[in-house]
Amino acid sequence: MSPKTVLITGCSSGIGLALAVRLAKDKQNVSRSGALAAAAGPALGQTLEIKQLDVCDEGSIRACLDSIPGRHVDILVSNAGVGMAGPLECQSLAAMQSLMDTNFFGLVRLVKEVLPDMKRRRGGHIVVISSIMGLQGIVFNDIYAASKFAVEGFCESLVVQALAPFPGRISLVEPGPVMTEFEVKLYEEAERADYSRTDPETADIFTNLYLRNSKDIFASLGQSPEDIAEVTGWGVAPFPTPQPGSPWLRWATNAAYTPMAALKHADPSGALMTDAFYKLVFKYDAVLRLSLRAIRLLRWKAQKVKEGARLLGFK
Amino acid sequence: MSPKTVLITGCSSGIGLALAVRLAKDKQNVSRSGALAAAAGPALGQTLEIKQLDVCDEGSIRACLDSIPGRHVDILVSNAGVGMAGPLECQSLAAMQSLMDTNFFGLVRLVKEVLPDMKRRRGGHIVVISSIMGLQGIVFNDIYAASKFAVEGFCESLVVQALAPFPGRISLVEPGPVMTEFEVKLYEEAERADYSRTDPETADIFTNLYLRNSKDIFASLGQSPEDIAEVTGWGVAPFPTPQPGSPWLRWATNAAYTPMAALKHADPSGALMTDAFYKLVFKYDAVLRLSLRAIRLLRWKAQKVKEGARLLGFK
Repeated sequence: MSPKTVLITGCSSGIGLALAVRLAKDKQNVSRSGALAAAAGPALGQTLEIKQLDVCDEGSIRACLDSIPGRHVDILVSNAGVGMAGPLECQSLAAMQSLMDTNFFGLVRLVKEVLPDMKRRRGGHIVVISSIMGLQGIVFNDIYAASKFAVEGFCESLVVQALAPFPGRISLVEPGPVMTEFEVKLYEEAERADYSRTDPETADIFTNLYLRNSKDIFASLGQSPEDIAEVTGWGVAPFPTPQPGSPWLRWATNAAYTPMAALKHADPSGALMTDAFYKLVFKYDAVLRLSLRAIRLLRWKAQKVKEGARLLGFK
Repeated sequence: MSPKTVLITGCSSGIGLALAVRLAKDKQNVSRSGALAAAAGPALGQTLEIKQLDVCDEGSIRACLDSIPGRHVDILVSNAGVGMAGPLECQSLAAMQSLMDTNFFGLVRLVKEVLPDMKRRRGGHIVVISSIMGLQGIVFNDIYAASKFAVEGFCESLVVQALAPFPGRISLVEPGPVMTEFEVKLYEEAERADYSRTDPETADIFTNLYLRNSKDIFASLGQSPEDIAEVTGWGVAPFPTPQPGSPWLRWATNAAYTPMAALKHADPSGALMTDAFYKLVFKYDAVLRLSLRAIRLLRWKAQKVKEGARLLGFK
């Protein structure tokens, strides 16, 4: 196996940071990077190199790529992203466009820059950190979901082309709720925000129903950045693909969201999904919160059992 | 039934034009509009009123809404859209952003403008002309598919909220290929375009495989703007919904695309869909073209039978 160059965007915190640390700490990667550093000279000389990169600026991406010897990127992990939640009436067009520019066009700019090199070399892997909200819209996440849906549509279109002219890969990683600074910041901002531009009823539903339930959902079903890095790591590592020539496109990280997506697929008209979400949010929210608390208790118990087993010497 | 105001964007040609003509010619609508004109005064006085509206300009949308008596829109049909097909390397970021600004943010601007009024009145219907490419990415349509996926994610997020504070409706109409000026222009432009910015192999696949197959697909599976207007008309008309409180969200107009979407849903990993598309485009394209010709022949025969039946006095 030859050494591999992995370019990860959005590494200052969260999933990007966890993934970078994971790959850098991997012993195989450390020894590989040594060989790569020897071949590439002092410009690269470390397992983990931190570069300035603004995914909203084509010049910045080009400069970053040009600083990599031979512009050789084996694996691009497009992870940079921003969040937004709240009533649509309270969000400005400028803020929405800025979100789309980072979450969607950031990926497009990166792909445009690495794709020609990957095609020329007839190899390469583009890993995109999408979201479960790229598969399923969630109330009060209209614009964030739209940006992640756009990411999904873009990659789904590109993947067939990617398989043919160059035998590369595209993978979409779809996390559910993840406890990172990204989410903490999002909820802090949401609690402080001004909701005077929407009607009082909508503002009340958002702050008293949505935000409260979201906190419960995060606490009960949330994963850590390290969990996501682990799944992404599988994707990045040579991994047995289900069929030669057609590697997995999608990697959902949170099994708790499978029933939600199943509802959508079971009824293409959308009636079943819409009805279930409506009832979950507006009619049975007490049941929802109770279930989430039960799940939290079960996860806590499972964790205790795992810790106990480790203390007793099991793996 | 009280008279209804329907605002349709993108009426200069294609689906928008067919839908406007259809609603204007509807006798019930003509009589309704007479009553509405009497109630609203000379500002509205006709069944079909043509207004200037740029969906990329918030001011233009506001001015249009302000020109409608009481800003009262019962049904918004968001139809304005532009197309783009070709290798990603040949498309500029500016052109992509402009497409997203029309196809996605055009809808967002319209919804932001009509939603508060609809919420206040506790009624209203937002009909969005999406695309089958909002459900399934297609090779060489990366950015167009992304814009329509964004539309789907946005509406799917909004629909649950739409059901609660105001008992309104959101509907997505998903046409497959439609023979309009939109498509003719797109293919004319694609044939004239400069593909020097991509590699010769990709350019060859696009012009000799994709464009050729697309023409066959349009000729064999394509629908007319009137077909789409008919389906959209059902959505606009009072229609028995499958369940009280949860009207249909999605209206796919072309049954030929159902198997394609089924592939995607049958295997969430995406391997099955990717493999099928890959083989269809790159391995069995002769079979694909043959099947399309057979479908064309069958549709032509069915049309002849229908015409014959009409001549004999059947409906």
